[in-house]
Amino acid sequence: MKQFGSVLDTHRAQVEDALRNALVEAGGLPLYGMLRYFMGYEDAALRPIQGVSGKRIRPTLLLYIADMFGGSPVALDLAISIELFHNFTLIHDDIEDHDELRRGRPTVWKLWGINHAINAGDVQSLLANRYLLRAAATDSIGGAKAARILNDRFMEVAEGQFFDFELATCGLADERVTVDTYLEMIRKKTSVLLGAAAAAGGVAAGCDEQVSATLFSYGESLGLAYQLADDTSSIWGAVAETGKEAFGDVVERKKTFPILHARDHGFSERLTELYASHQPLTTQEISEIVDILNNSGAQEATRTLGETYVQIAKERAQELPIAKEAIQTLVSLVDTFVQFGLPITPDGR
Amino acid sequence: MKQFGSVLDTHRAQVEDALRNALVEAGGLPLYGMLRYFMGYEDAALRPIQGVSGKRIRPTLLLYIADMFGGSPVALDLAISIELFHNFTLIHDDIEDHDELRRGRPTVWKLWGINHAINAGDVQSLLANRYLLRAAATDSIGGAKAARILNDRFMEVAEGQFFDFELATCGLADERVTVDTYLEMIRKKTSVLLGAAAAAGGVAAGCDEQVSATLFSYGESLGLAYQLADDTSSIWGAVAETGKEAFGDVVERKKTFPILHARDHGFSERLTELYASHQPLTTQEISEIVDILNNSGAQEATRTLGETYVQIAKERAQELPIAKEAIQTLVSLVDTFVQFGLPITPDGR
Repeated sequence: MKQFGSVLDTHRAQVEDALRNALVEAGGLPLYGMLRYFMGYEDAALRPIQGVSGKRIRPTLLLYIADMFGGSPVALDLAISIELFHNFTLIHDDIEDHDELRRGRPTVWKLWGINHAINAGDVQSLLANRYLLRAAATDSIGGAKAARILNDRFMEVAEGQFFDFELATCGLADERVTVDTYLEMIRKKTSVLLGAAAAAGGVAAGCDEQVSATLFSYGESLGLAYQLADDTSSIWGAVAETGKEAFGDVVERKKTFPILHARDHGFSERLTELYASHQPLTTQEISEIVDILNNSGAQEATRTLGETYVQIAKERAQELPIAKEAIQTLVSLVDTFVQFGLPITPDGR
Repeated sequence: MKQFGSVLDTHRAQVEDALRNALVEAGGLPLYGMLRYFMGYEDAALRPIQGVSGKRIRPTLLLYIADMFGGSPVALDLAISIELFHNFTLIHDDIEDHDELRRGRPTVWKLWGINHAINAGDVQSLLANRYLLRAAATDSIGGAKAARILNDRFMEVAEGQFFDFELATCGLADERVTVDTYLEMIRKKTSVLLGAAAAAGGVAAGCDEQVSATLFSYGESLGLAYQLADDTSSIWGAVAETGKEAFGDVVERKKTFPILHARDHGFSERLTELYASHQPLTTQEISEIVDILNNSGAQEATRTLGETYVQIAKERAQELPIAKEAIQTLVSLVDTFVQFGLPITPDGR
């Protein structure tokens, strides 16, 4: 773990410098200041700060894998692009979900209004593309291929967002709301971007299609496992550890994997009833839903499925034609990133 | 004019086929159906229709200029990209301006809600990128350069949108609301995309930087002239001819060139007062503003400035190293596209 940590830190520092430069070079307009604010480089008055930034898992993974396959002159451009893209989707997600806080700070729409936030996200997507074009225009054939992988998967993220809206507007008893639909939604919305990071890193460094597919599957499985762990901690996670609201996904009536599991295992009628109302759930109703989840074995089922994806990710890592140490690093990353092991208490405190 | 018409039609038909294919190939999800709806290829139930489409001026200009410089294998990809980009900005503009109709049809947000409309615009921007990446990845060095020109100018359009929001929130007396700021806003928001269409067409076909700059200036001046003509017809245009609301920009208290001209020529106090209220303007107040505009010579001033840009565009066309007939076509396009000559009546009927 320690070894992986230091590998991660080296690449993360490189990403962080490049990202900050990219957003400074973008321009002096407050429009770009909003982007620097969101990335943690400026405060709400657009003054530079040393803030807490995101995990930068996608670009870090991309750079690390490119290095493990011999390196690529365009890996850093691709890494910047994927992180700019990911954060652009968050700026728009915050508008769509009416979220007022992210990483403990007011969201872009909350500070500057919805119009500026839509436009700021739009320009960040275009900036992400600038770095893809740079990678595609180099002589290295791998750069163009890797850029295309990223662009295609960026579109798939928007498709995942579409499915998310569709699921959100359906009732819990709607026949379109299935475990399969949910898994397809989180695959597109969350997982393909991790798959794309891994695949693009390898392809940029010249690896072939078979290895690219293995890399994609590694990242995708990692992403699915991560999301299922998040589904668990968003209900049962200890508030002190996660910083999340107690039973948050229940309070928000989200239709995540644990809920769908309980619905499909004998609790359909009562859950559908509790989910159908537009009134906020009472404390008693929240407790009732958590009891239903616990009685249906939803937490164990979510963890079991998540650990299946953990296993797939680790197997994919072991299939890669890279040094044993590098394989071990990728295996460790799965355990670092997917935290089913977080202290989870039945009452969520 | 007739000759230009037929040139335009050939290229426009080519663009239209390619655009329709691009949006069919994008995928079968309703997410892509929304885009086909917006482009006029499907109805609100997502069934194919033979609808009225936009003018497609940008991609048509791009293709025509590429052909005049000997053609380019990537011109069609670039043309698709610029039209997809332009329409993506309109999908988001409609959200931002709360517009419920465009080209006589309900807007995307009006039909499917704001969240879907944000996401649909996002995926269309990414689809526009796909075609830039295709152009950049070909062997032709011109393709990569032209793709970069488009991406850079796409970002400038978002900067123009930023300035537009800023102007809209300032009072008419605010020192930031100047003719220069307004012209810079319309330059970025409207004109650079026409400049980029012309320049990218030439660069893709191998023309040098000096010619590229001349082409850009041609398109940019055409765009500025067009916008000033639009400022005129959005106040004085005959309702029957334009399909616009009588005195529309006045009714909406827009701070366009004619208004700023009047403000700067002796009518600052009363105009600022009438613009400061948040109540809808009465019929009498609208008449008073139109009288102020007429007394200040705002219509003539707008037309005079617009005709200056018309002249610049025509001069740039004449500087191009292309056949005389092609120059004449580009000169005619200015007159076709910029219609200060529309019947304009003092009372806007």
